[in-house]
Amino acid sequence: MSSKWSVDVLLALGDGTRRYHELLEDLAPISEKVLTQTLRAMERDGLLIRRVHAEVPPRVEYALSSLGATMAPPLKALGSWSLTHGKRVEEARDRFDARAAARVRAA
Amino acid sequence: MSSKWSVDVLLALGDGTRRYHELLEDLAPISEKVLTQTLRAMERDGLLIRRVHAEVPPRVEYALSSLGATMAPPLKALGSWSLTHGKRVEEARDRFDARAAARVRAA
Repeated sequence: MSSKWSVDVLLALGDGTRRYHELLEDLAPISEKVLTQTLRAMERDGLLIRRVHAEVPPRVEYALSSLGATMAPPLKALGSWSLTHGKRVEEARDRFDARAAARVRAA
Repeated sequence: MSSKWSVDVLLALGDGTRRYHELLEDLAPISEKVLTQTLRAMERDGLLIRRVHAEVPPRVEYALSSLGATMAPPLKALGSWSLTHGKRVEEARDRFDARAAARVRAA
């Protein structure tokens, strides 16, 4: 459960049950393949519940499990850390890359 | 900064400056290649500081930057979540895999 998308799925489901295509919109620009893999891995980890309603076409809904709900607080803390500090990380990366480029030129 | 090893490096450096081979021991069974890549990525993200002391052989030390230190609380919260709930995740995975295997046999 270490992918960025899992965090976004958990936070999206924190607002309640969602259908597949709703999650696809919530998490744009995620691809269908990655969303499907992420949901399957999270279902396997017991973090979410997948309900299939026997309609035509079948309606598939996802909801946080009780285990998934316990993960929301630490994930929200990490989410707000990245909102607060994301810019400093980007600036650090720019400085690091500039130093690396300078070393290449000097070599 | 989404790898499991970055979390372990941050928590290890939370106790103070460490040298490369000390981190290699702290994080066993991490490989030298993965530790080197992880440290480089985290230095690039501005989360840690790498100091090279001009000795023979050169002494290389790693320490948390001020930015890295701000990440400790949310990471510790996530770390304690996985300590508390890790077993439930494993049990969920076993159930999921058993259901998947049963479906294969029934097919």
